[in-house]
Amino acid sequence: MRIGYLGPGGTFTEEAAIKWAGERPKRIAFDTLKLVIMAVPQGEVDESIVPIENFLEGGVDSTSDTLIRLDGIKIRGEITIPVKHNLIGFKKLNFSQIKKVVSKKEAIGQCQGWLEKKLRSFKVLYAESTAEAVKEIEKYGDPEETVVIGTILAAKLYGGKIIARNIQDHEDNASRFVIIAKRDVGKPTGDDKTSIIFEVQDKPGSLVRILEIFDVMEINMTEIESRPSKRKMGEYIFWVDIAGHRKEEKVKVALELVERKSAFLKILGSYPRSKEA
Amino acid sequence: MRIGYLGPGGTFTEEAAIKWAGERPKRIAFDTLKLVIMAVPQGEVDESIVPIENFLEGGVDSTSDTLIRLDGIKIRGEITIPVKHNLIGFKKLNFSQIKKVVSKKEAIGQCQGWLEKKLRSFKVLYAESTAEAVKEIEKYGDPEETVVIGTILAAKLYGGKIIARNIQDHEDNASRFVIIAKRDVGKPTGDDKTSIIFEVQDKPGSLVRILEIFDVMEINMTEIESRPSKRKMGEYIFWVDIAGHRKEEKVKVALELVERKSAFLKILGSYPRSKEA
Repeated sequence: MRIGYLGPGGTFTEEAAIKWAGERPKRIAFDTLKLVIMAVPQGEVDESIVPIENFLEGGVDSTSDTLIRLDGIKIRGEITIPVKHNLIGFKKLNFSQIKKVVSKKEAIGQCQGWLEKKLRSFKVLYAESTAEAVKEIEKYGDPEETVVIGTILAAKLYGGKIIARNIQDHEDNASRFVIIAKRDVGKPTGDDKTSIIFEVQDKPGSLVRILEIFDVMEINMTEIESRPSKRKMGEYIFWVDIAGHRKEEKVKVALELVERKSAFLKILGSYPRSKEA
Repeated sequence: MRIGYLGPGGTFTEEAAIKWAGERPKRIAFDTLKLVIMAVPQGEVDESIVPIENFLEGGVDSTSDTLIRLDGIKIRGEITIPVKHNLIGFKKLNFSQIKKVVSKKEAIGQCQGWLEKKLRSFKVLYAESTAEAVKEIEKYGDPEETVVIGTILAAKLYGGKIIARNIQDHEDNASRFVIIAKRDVGKPTGDDKTSIIFEVQDKPGSLVRILEIFDVMEINMTEIESRPSKRKMGEYIFWVDIAGHRKEEKVKVALELVERKSAFLKILGSYPRSKEA
């Protein structure tokens, strides 16, 4: 088994990959989200893992936009992990010596309260990912006064020292990841989800007409997200997660009706629902 | 008239502020989006302007999340402007001399194709905003090899030179901004929109039940967006724009029904629909 993820090593996604598949399978890092996803249809990996939703930030638009537009990929699982942030340095630093804080924008935002309380005045620099910031610290500033927000895994990988643990402002923060492969999970387990994307027809009430199908058939919708079509302002593609497996009779019938009433439907896959982190 | 926006000067939002109100009103820059919005109820400005949606990226989550949670503010207008990106330097540079490109993450993404075609190899650094990157270039790197993606306004303000104009990959990219104030526009103009946010009741079909109201009453929905409640994974707040003014009889009745069938409803305001940019 080979599992792809967005590199460099030490991101939350790598933590999620380990939680999903254990330490055994070979983890392969790719440079961009698109490459991570493309690696599946191109056979470079058996599965890839990508972030899809954060408790505080909502949907990960870059993931959904890529999954909407690429063919030959299915979702075959999901996993939720708690988001814990740590302050990482490469020197022994007191809080008062810290002048620059580097990380992914979202990570900085999720620790803003802590940073403002503990540090005097600091400049913020944004990095591509938390792990990239730890790995490439010298790109961002002098390690005598620069620290990074990242995972414990990244600190270990790149020789950083943990200056402070669990500095996130919101204790319950968590991220959900989906696992993609060439095929979804073909057999219902009794507690499954199905992810679909569709575009509504260009007339009033088209969205309601589709959501009513799930309502009438008592199929629970666990998520709905709108993304721009990128063709026209105000034109959207919808991502919906429903309870049930595409091979269950009721879901099958519902999806046939959705197909008939939408301008475009893609079934991204059926897979077992994850237990909450 | 005083109009607030997210500083520093020279962002797309300042361009939008000028297009909205002309050069006359005093424009006041604030350091964070929350401060821009708070300045309205606190009386520091008469209006503030904030980005709400981009043609390619979708909704601006930080804006909608702030508007969802703050009281005493209404939307009283919207304006759409085309997004044009420029490569800005502080030295005369050939493409081959450029080693670092700095900007807001979204701006880098929107010029990725151009950058990969024109530059050899380059490192990317993310900034808080396009204008901040132009203003604080030395924070990011040596001006002998570092360039910024930003607006022409920012280049003028901070003494940058335009190395290349209109480098965005997508010609039709545009951003929509909303103008907030203590009050919305009280009188219908005949071509208005109303923005609302609501939370559905915690039972199956609650969302459909609300959208059906607009459908049955032939009120067109121009936007629907879901945002996390930040209380529980899988719990959402919906932002919906509908055609019509809250004082029109039909809209009034619909909103009363929505209030009755939702767990929570806030009317963000009615305002004239903007012509497309």
